[in-house]
Amino acid sequence: MHSLSQYQDFFSDYLLGQQLLKEPNQLYEPIDYIIGLGGKRMRPILTLMSAEIFGTDYKQALPAALAIEMFHNFSLVHDDIMDDAPLRRGNETVHEKWDLNTGILSGDAMLILAYQYFEQYEPAVFRDLAKLFSKTAIEVCEGQQWDVDFETRDDVTLPEYLHMIKCKTAVLVGAALKMGAIIAGASDEDSDAIYQFGCNLGIAFQLQDDYLDAFGDPKSFGKQTGGDIIENKKTYLYLKTLEFAKDGQREQLLHLYSVHPNDNTDKVISVKEIYNATGASDATRDAIREYTEKAFANLDSLNLTREKRELLESFGQSLMQRQV
Amino acid sequence: MHSLSQYQDFFSDYLLGQQLLKEPNQLYEPIDYIIGLGGKRMRPILTLMSAEIFGTDYKQALPAALAIEMFHNFSLVHDDIMDDAPLRRGNETVHEKWDLNTGILSGDAMLILAYQYFEQYEPAVFRDLAKLFSKTAIEVCEGQQWDVDFETRDDVTLPEYLHMIKCKTAVLVGAALKMGAIIAGASDEDSDAIYQFGCNLGIAFQLQDDYLDAFGDPKSFGKQTGGDIIENKKTYLYLKTLEFAKDGQREQLLHLYSVHPNDNTDKVISVKEIYNATGASDATRDAIREYTEKAFANLDSLNLTREKRELLESFGQSLMQRQV
Repeated sequence: MHSLSQYQDFFSDYLLGQQLLKEPNQLYEPIDYIIGLGGKRMRPILTLMSAEIFGTDYKQALPAALAIEMFHNFSLVHDDIMDDAPLRRGNETVHEKWDLNTGILSGDAMLILAYQYFEQYEPAVFRDLAKLFSKTAIEVCEGQQWDVDFETRDDVTLPEYLHMIKCKTAVLVGAALKMGAIIAGASDEDSDAIYQFGCNLGIAFQLQDDYLDAFGDPKSFGKQTGGDIIENKKTYLYLKTLEFAKDGQREQLLHLYSVHPNDNTDKVISVKEIYNATGASDATRDAIREYTEKAFANLDSLNLTREKRELLESFGQSLMQRQV
Repeated sequence: MHSLSQYQDFFSDYLLGQQLLKEPNQLYEPIDYIIGLGGKRMRPILTLMSAEIFGTDYKQALPAALAIEMFHNFSLVHDDIMDDAPLRRGNETVHEKWDLNTGILSGDAMLILAYQYFEQYEPAVFRDLAKLFSKTAIEVCEGQQWDVDFETRDDVTLPEYLHMIKCKTAVLVGAALKMGAIIAGASDEDSDAIYQFGCNLGIAFQLQDDYLDAFGDPKSFGKQTGGDIIENKKTYLYLKTLEFAKDGQREQLLHLYSVHPNDNTDKVISVKEIYNATGASDATRDAIREYTEKAFANLDSLNLTREKRELLESFGQSLMQRQV
C-alpha cells in the first residue's frame, strides 16, 4: 500500500506519459487543456487505492483511473456550458476559451476516449468495467437533469434531493472504487461493499458541500460562502428548513428565496439565521455524520487489515476534514 | 435472407418494442422524439443484413443495429446544435423544440445508451463491438472537427477532403456492416472486406451528395439544390475546380465564393458553369463511379452466393440511384 500523496504522484506521472495532443488539434487541445488544469484527482486515486486494497498492483488500475478522470472532466466541460460558467479551477472554461461548438465536440470525444482506456483489459474485465461505467455515466446524466428540473420545481422532496446528489456526484465515487475491485478480481460482495462505501461517502461529501457553502470558513472552504443562497439554490439546508419550519418561517424563507437584491449581505445572514433557528443546520450536520458512518460501516464486511482500513479512513477524513 | 424493406420492418418493430421513455422525462423524451422522427434506417439495416450474409439470424444483430442508430441520432442532435439547424427531417431539432442544454445532455445520454445495447452480447463479442464502436465514434468526432476547420481554411486539399468525409460519414457505414460480421463470427478478413465495402460506398454516397446538391433534380434529391454553393461550402466539386482551373477560372470561383448576394440565382448558375467548364463535374461523376466500383471490388474476396451479392448490390443501387 502507498500513501494518498503517492497515489496522486503515480497518477500524475501516468497522465504526463499520455499523448493527448493529436490532429485535429482543435478537438484534442481543449481535452489536454482541461485535463491539465489539475484538481485533486480524487476519483482516479480511489481506483488505484482500491486495486491495491484488493491485492493487485496499482499499475494495473491506471487505465481505468484515467477513464474515470476523463469522464469526470467530460462532465465538467458539458456542465460548464449548461451553467454558462466562465471559470473552472480559476481558469477559463473550454467553451469560454474556445467556443460552444468546441466544448460540445471535445466533450463528446472525452466520453469516447474514456471507454477506449478500458480496452487495455481482457474481455471479461473490459466488459465489467464498461458496463459499470455506462450505468454510472447514465446516472450522472440523470442527476444533472434532476438538478435542472429542481430549479423550476417548488415541490422537491428530501428523498428526491438525496437521489439527485447520489446520481450527480456519489455514484462516480462508488464506481471509481468498484473499478479497482473489478480489476483486482474481488468478489461481487466485496465490490459492492466498496461501491456502497463510495456512494455514502459521496453523499456525505455533497451534503457537506451544501453546509459549507452557507456556514464554511471561506479560507478553508476555498470559495466565497453564501453562493447557493444568493442563487436561490434548493440545497439540503433549504429543504430541511421547509420541513422543520413553523410560525411563518416557511413564508419568510420562501420570500427571501424569491428576491434578488443588489447587495446580498442581509439576505445571506437572514437565511442562515432561519437555517439555524429551525434546526436545519443541526439536522444537516447530523446527516453528514450519518452518511459518513454508514460509509465506514460498509467497510466492516470487508475484513480489511488495519493498514488498509486506515488508508480508506484517512481518505475519508481528508475528504471530510474541511472545517466549518 | 430477406429484402431491404423486410429488414426495415424488422428494425422498426424492434424499435417499437423499446421503452425509451422513462424518468427524468426531460432527458428521455427528446431521445424518444428524435429516434421517432424516422429516416431511412440505412445503417441499422446494414447491420442486420450483414449478420445474415455471414450466416447468423438477423435477430442476433438487433441490439447492435439499435446502438448504431442511437449513435447516428446522437451525432445529429449535437451536429444540429453546432450548425444552428432549426429543422431535422422536416421537424424541429431537439435544441429548438427544447433548448440548448437539453440537446447537449440528451445527446450525451444517447451516446452512453448506444454502448449499453452491446451489453446483450457475450464478453468477447461485446468487446469487439465496443472497440469498433469507440474507434468509429472518435473518427466521426474528428471528421466533424475537420469539417469545421475547413470552413476557415483556404488550403484544403482533395486528400484532406476525402479523409474528412470518410471520417464524418463513411466509417459509420463500414462499422454498421462490420458489426453484423462480428456478431456472426466472421473471419477478420471477411469482416475487414465488408468494412471496406461500407467505407467506399459511404465515400461514393457523400461525393454524390456533393454532386446532387449542385446538379440534382430537387424532386428526386429531396431538397432544394445549390445550398452548398450559397453557403460557400468547400465540396469535392469546388476543390476539383480549383485543381483544374485555368485562365482566370480560379479567381472567378474565389470571387463568387466570397460574396453573399440577396438573390443567389445568378451565383448558383455561374458557379455550376465553372464546375462544368473546368471538367470538375465530370471528374466528380468519375470519382463517384470509382468509389462505387472499389466498394463492389471489396466484395470479391468474400465469395458470396449470388443471392447475397445481389442483396448488397441492390442496397448499393438503392443508395446511389438518386438521379441527377
